[in-house]
Amino acid sequence: MVPVLKIKGLSRSAARQALKDGEVTVAVYGLGKMGLPLALVLAEVGAKVVGVDIREDYVDELNRGVNPLREEPGVDDLLAKHLETGRFRATTNGVEASKKSDVIIALVPTLVDEFGIPNLTPLYDVVEVAAKGLEEGDIFILESTVPPGTSEKLGKRLEELSGLKMGEDFGVAHAPERTSSGRVIRDITESYPKIVGASDPETLESVVGFYEAVNKKGVIAVSSLAAAEAVKVFEGVYRDVNIALANELALYAEVMNIDVWEVIKAANTQPYCHIHNPGAGVGGHCIPVYPYFLIHTAGLNGLDMRILKVARRVNEEMPLHVAWLVVKALNELSRPVKGSRVLVLGFAYRPRVKEHMNTPAIPIVRRLEELGAQVYVYDPVYESEELKDMGFKPWAGEPVDVVVIVTEYDEFRDLILKRREGLKAAKALVDTRNLVGREEAERASYFFLKLGDGT
Amino acid sequence: MVPVLKIKGLSRSAARQALKDGEVTVAVYGLGKMGLPLALVLAEVGAKVVGVDIREDYVDELNRGVNPLREEPGVDDLLAKHLETGRFRATTNGVEASKKSDVIIALVPTLVDEFGIPNLTPLYDVVEVAAKGLEEGDIFILESTVPPGTSEKLGKRLEELSGLKMGEDFGVAHAPERTSSGRVIRDITESYPKIVGASDPETLESVVGFYEAVNKKGVIAVSSLAAAEAVKVFEGVYRDVNIALANELALYAEVMNIDVWEVIKAANTQPYCHIHNPGAGVGGHCIPVYPYFLIHTAGLNGLDMRILKVARRVNEEMPLHVAWLVVKALNELSRPVKGSRVLVLGFAYRPRVKEHMNTPAIPIVRRLEELGAQVYVYDPVYESEELKDMGFKPWAGEPVDVVVIVTEYDEFRDLILKRREGLKAAKALVDTRNLVGREEAERASYFFLKLGDGT
Repeated sequence: MVPVLKIKGLSRSAARQALKDGEVTVAVYGLGKMGLPLALVLAEVGAKVVGVDIREDYVDELNRGVNPLREEPGVDDLLAKHLETGRFRATTNGVEASKKSDVIIALVPTLVDEFGIPNLTPLYDVVEVAAKGLEEGDIFILESTVPPGTSEKLGKRLEELSGLKMGEDFGVAHAPERTSSGRVIRDITESYPKIVGASDPETLESVVGFYEAVNKKGVIAVSSLAAAEAVKVFEGVYRDVNIALANELALYAEVMNIDVWEVIKAANTQPYCHIHNPGAGVGGHCIPVYPYFLIHTAGLNGLDMRILKVARRVNEEMPLHVAWLVVKALNELSRPVKGSRVLVLGFAYRPRVKEHMNTPAIPIVRRLEELGAQVYVYDPVYESEELKDMGFKPWAGEPVDVVVIVTEYDEFRDLILKRREGLKAAKALVDTRNLVGREEAERASYFFLKLGDGT
Repeated sequence: MVPVLKIKGLSRSAARQALKDGEVTVAVYGLGKMGLPLALVLAEVGAKVVGVDIREDYVDELNRGVNPLREEPGVDDLLAKHLETGRFRATTNGVEASKKSDVIIALVPTLVDEFGIPNLTPLYDVVEVAAKGLEEGDIFILESTVPPGTSEKLGKRLEELSGLKMGEDFGVAHAPERTSSGRVIRDITESYPKIVGASDPETLESVVGFYEAVNKKGVIAVSSLAAAEAVKVFEGVYRDVNIALANELALYAEVMNIDVWEVIKAANTQPYCHIHNPGAGVGGHCIPVYPYFLIHTAGLNGLDMRILKVARRVNEEMPLHVAWLVVKALNELSRPVKGSRVLVLGFAYRPRVKEHMNTPAIPIVRRLEELGAQVYVYDPVYESEELKDMGFKPWAGEPVDVVVIVTEYDEFRDLILKRREGLKAAKALVDTRNLVGREEAERASYFFLKLGDGT
């Protein structure tokens, strides 16, 4: 089956209708936490979808109906349904998938290395493969978040590899995913409008129609690929800088003997004030990464992103401050760090989402271990074995001296206040998430320190 | 008349009722843009109000019914009305006013010097005078925005001067004004809840009742004087840092050939994203000042407010960048800066509000004058004579080469696009406020540069 549809050139309404009518074949490269839900949503809308991933076992299991994203609402049903309808199947053969497809979507991870330099290798790998099946009238859509300028470069690479001309023979669009783990399908279909930028007006028109079929909140077309790229990165950077501001205000509150949580709550009664919450640090594969996309591309153009850099530094140093609070608590108990037993509550960077990339829990644990503390880790969504495999000491209810709350799981309140398991003799509590009140903590006989509270 | 009411000690409802029933005499120190409206609102609620100011002519005129705040909606009516009812009068005799009053409110300006050090002299002057009339049962309320820790220090000074004990004999409260010029009366009475912190629970109770009679949005009591101080300063700091972020993103957009205004608008369709607008700089006596309140007090405690400092620097450098854009425009016209005629549109830092403290217009003008440009200034709310007195060249329709929009007055659009007065031959337009579209500017034959737009 060779596709005859040339989606580039279709009007907005024709593209929308073609997708719904099952006339569009889409290859989705990257079947991870964002890519698989997108592929399934497209199948649900009506497309024939070929999902591409390099992991053979993963692909085999998907085709057998094994859902790798059990925690992601809606994926179970859609996967079963569209393996059945035949509108979704997975493959490792990216060339074949591209040949069959009218629309090629790339949604693979984009990260930065330890020096803050973006690593776009997975994307270029996709382009290398997809180019072999690129045909006239096809559209390549990048959904991964990238440093501004990337889509254009990928398009140039597709030109080199295919001999076709971007903007004429084939189109390139950037339509950044705007999703959060745990609500990906809802985010794809109805949370926010879709942002689209394209290599040329014709491609823009077709891609707007394409996403109108998917997203109930509609589509916002912006004037260039780079503008669409910037939209997504700016959103993340706004959060990173505002979390850093909250963290700096938390440090201020500690030295000035006020409670930053109380102050922020009151300040935010001014309707234009949106001060964020402080915390133990900023985890994930988005917020801590995107600032570097701008820092790096700005640097290449001789511009120093001073605010973004210092915000990153403040957020990256927060786990050290939390370790300091633990040391302060142990000091209050007249205990050396060495040999003390510390329980870190929360390993994921967000409650209930099994993700620990850049989680502040890791540097907190490591910093205390450096001084010889015995640090246990507990997180309801991680198995003991998983933590052990990563080199952490899983908590199985052993008695501890100090408890530190890193992630905001509600159930930690009960664990702590009712002194369950090994917390019977725990003497101090460090709360980085404002999960426990000072009064209730002290009523439960903890020496209590709260991040950002100097009262 | 010596007041018999001891407001400290009244329950919330009793304090509220006493104010409404005309049983409370209030001295308001500082009859400026915030203080006079507050004094009049209190009279309107029912209080007997003595307004105190050090400017004799100003006080005389007020008592004769001359309104110094003509642009402030509602002041005209309330001033006339309460001179008539006798519930408001002004005086320069601060000691007398304090003696007669149950509640003493200070609302004088608090600024920083050129080194960023807070200058609280006007406040200590008020305390010096007010202390002479301080009696048991009185409450001293600070409404001026101050560095956290200030109310406590003022209270200690009142103790020293009066021999009375704070928290016992008299109360101290901080209830920061949350108002903007041009809408002060609305802001005092119904825009946002009032924030109150106090020296002791009894004072807190009475002051909450007091403001409940004034503010329809109610009162939020916080746990300390310093917490209330921080609330107001944090609000301002949030804005300063976010404007700085927007400015840094504008500089990024210029080097990356995107339009920051388009990108921000699209990014803000994510409901948790509130990226601010970039601009020529941050003016006023609030936003550019408050960060220094935190920077200074943190520094005294060994804490470096890194984000606040770099945000200030970015905002303070924006006028230089705008001057650079003007130079770039002149360069495009192949003109040297020397001898070129530049029109700066907007002198106030906000449209329609006659205030120019820290306005970016001044450094823009000065920087261009340094290179020998002939810089005219025009602002609808400033008279030519006023501008001349401050050392600026008022524009009276003279022909110019380049126009630069600094303040967002809608009427500038017509002036520019219809090429009124001396704009017939103007060749270039620099827009720092996204007031004019690129297409319409180019249709009107301007060489067009927009801050944050590298397209």
